[in-house]
Amino acid sequence: MSAVLHFSAADAARIEPYLPPPSLSGSHSAALLASSVSSVSSAQSTDRVRPFVTLTFATSLDSSLALAPGVRTALSGPQSKAMTHYLRSRHDAILVGVGTAEADDPALNCRIAAADTVGAELSDPSSISTRQPRPIIVDPHDRWLLTHNSRVLATQRCGLGLAPYIITAVSEPDETKRQLLERHGGKYITLNAISGSSDSGQKGAARFCWKDVLTCLARNGLGSIMIEGGGTVINTLLAPENSPLVDSVIITIAPTWLGRGGVVVSPDRVYDNSNNATAAARLVDVKWQQIGDDAVLCGRLNCHI
Amino acid sequence: MSAVLHFSAADAARIEPYLPPPSLSGSHSAALLASSVSSVSSAQSTDRVRPFVTLTFATSLDSSLALAPGVRTALSGPQSKAMTHYLRSRHDAILVGVGTAEADDPALNCRIAAADTVGAELSDPSSISTRQPRPIIVDPHDRWLLTHNSRVLATQRCGLGLAPYIITAVSEPDETKRQLLERHGGKYITLNAISGSSDSGQKGAARFCWKDVLTCLARNGLGSIMIEGGGTVINTLLAPENSPLVDSVIITIAPTWLGRGGVVVSPDRVYDNSNNATAAARLVDVKWQQIGDDAVLCGRLNCHI
Repeated sequence: MSAVLHFSAADAARIEPYLPPPSLSGSHSAALLASSVSSVSSAQSTDRVRPFVTLTFATSLDSSLALAPGVRTALSGPQSKAMTHYLRSRHDAILVGVGTAEADDPALNCRIAAADTVGAELSDPSSISTRQPRPIIVDPHDRWLLTHNSRVLATQRCGLGLAPYIITAVSEPDETKRQLLERHGGKYITLNAISGSSDSGQKGAARFCWKDVLTCLARNGLGSIMIEGGGTVINTLLAPENSPLVDSVIITIAPTWLGRGGVVVSPDRVYDNSNNATAAARLVDVKWQQIGDDAVLCGRLNCHI
Repeated sequence: MSAVLHFSAADAARIEPYLPPPSLSGSHSAALLASSVSSVSSAQSTDRVRPFVTLTFATSLDSSLALAPGVRTALSGPQSKAMTHYLRSRHDAILVGVGTAEADDPALNCRIAAADTVGAELSDPSSISTRQPRPIIVDPHDRWLLTHNSRVLATQRCGLGLAPYIITAVSEPDETKRQLLERHGGKYITLNAISGSSDSGQKGAARFCWKDVLTCLARNGLGSIMIEGGGTVINTLLAPENSPLVDSVIITIAPTWLGRGGVVVSPDRVYDNSNNATAAARLVDVKWQQIGDDAVLCGRLNCHI
């Protein structure tokens, strides 16, 4: 497994305003959130039928996540990588699309030093955080080839991470994978798709409504979600109809151009009332900072552009 | 004409390492440069057969210069705009492609306050810089519809800028435009194209070799060139064969996504010796800083990636 990463308290303080409040994360608050769904009597609990959502990813200057679909592309430097793992320590769950799960075979755990996590008690500085986020894979067609050797499950067996929840539109997911998941402490969550067919062999890709996905995660006790990719997931969340669901955006930009043909973050074109093209999304409360050679951009989506 | 812009000495100090040394700019050094071309006896003068080149532009987060070709798109904030005009005050010339000249009808002058320019003597803080860069338009086919009312000429007549030099591959450019240019103090420069046809009505777009263009500008007494766009110009300069010609890169990034279909900065794909796609260009000596809501990224192209 990879080495333990360190993220300085000074760097952490600078991104703190863009993170879920500590009271929102952890199993205690998650339980509160779950109960708030069934009892929405107060304004506060109504607010929290959805989790706090942080959208975060790393791109090149030409807005590419990777050189091509399925090609792991080292973009950001070691300090930015440590930040990503610090962010993971501050969320209940990490969400990726099935394309990213297939391409990267990711561990989806937090490898930040336990001592660098918020509220950490005195601990061995070389030990890894014991607070691990829940991996969430959005896989409408249940196509991910999860096996015993998948990195996310191997990581769970080592006690260094959690098994995933797979959100699918397939009413009866693969039985072997279901048992494998459940033996590791993960599970399938079946959700209605809003378009396309959920069963393989039929035409049309099934898609979920993001609001449904997030509400469902809150019901499963997850109070804060870090959404990491890939391109399709990010571009749909930047669209005007979904941007109100995103609480915070944290982007790492590496000073590199990958060149044409990469997996690009760029939402669909948006038109104004006069049918003129206009900016698709804009950040407000913006803070840029340099970490190593990369920039980290924190902001919130302006839902009124 | 637009208002006078101000750029603080503190902001200027931060970008200073990425600018041409003051000794390189101005008509005195330009004259030296011109003479060095005909007399390349010393290493120093050999070095200066080409001008210092700063590549600078403003993009969205999805690396778009504009919503579409020909659509003027406000991207960067007022402070970044002041920086652009400060940069203009520090170069002998500003270069754009004919597409940008056609789309924007730009003034291509420097509207920074005289008091903010380097080496400024005590002057009225409301007066505009008297040191103006030479506009250069790269127009192989002599297609730009320059008229008496073009903004760049109107600006010259007001004493607020210089008339352009047009670099073309057409051996006998339009006579009316030639006279118009020369009355304003500008001129045509004819240069051999490396491909395509230079005469209208024939097939194939003419293209210049960037080395030829820059050598020719040095011969014309211009010791430092700020290259501002558009997309084609920038993408070809970021290509490995041209990146050694670029001394400095200064990019403004606005915290906005324009969405798919914009005019994108992304160089052509580059392959390594094993025919695998690899990063097309990378910056070193990187400095990021926040100006207003935008980031300004300064760096130098790594010519050995």
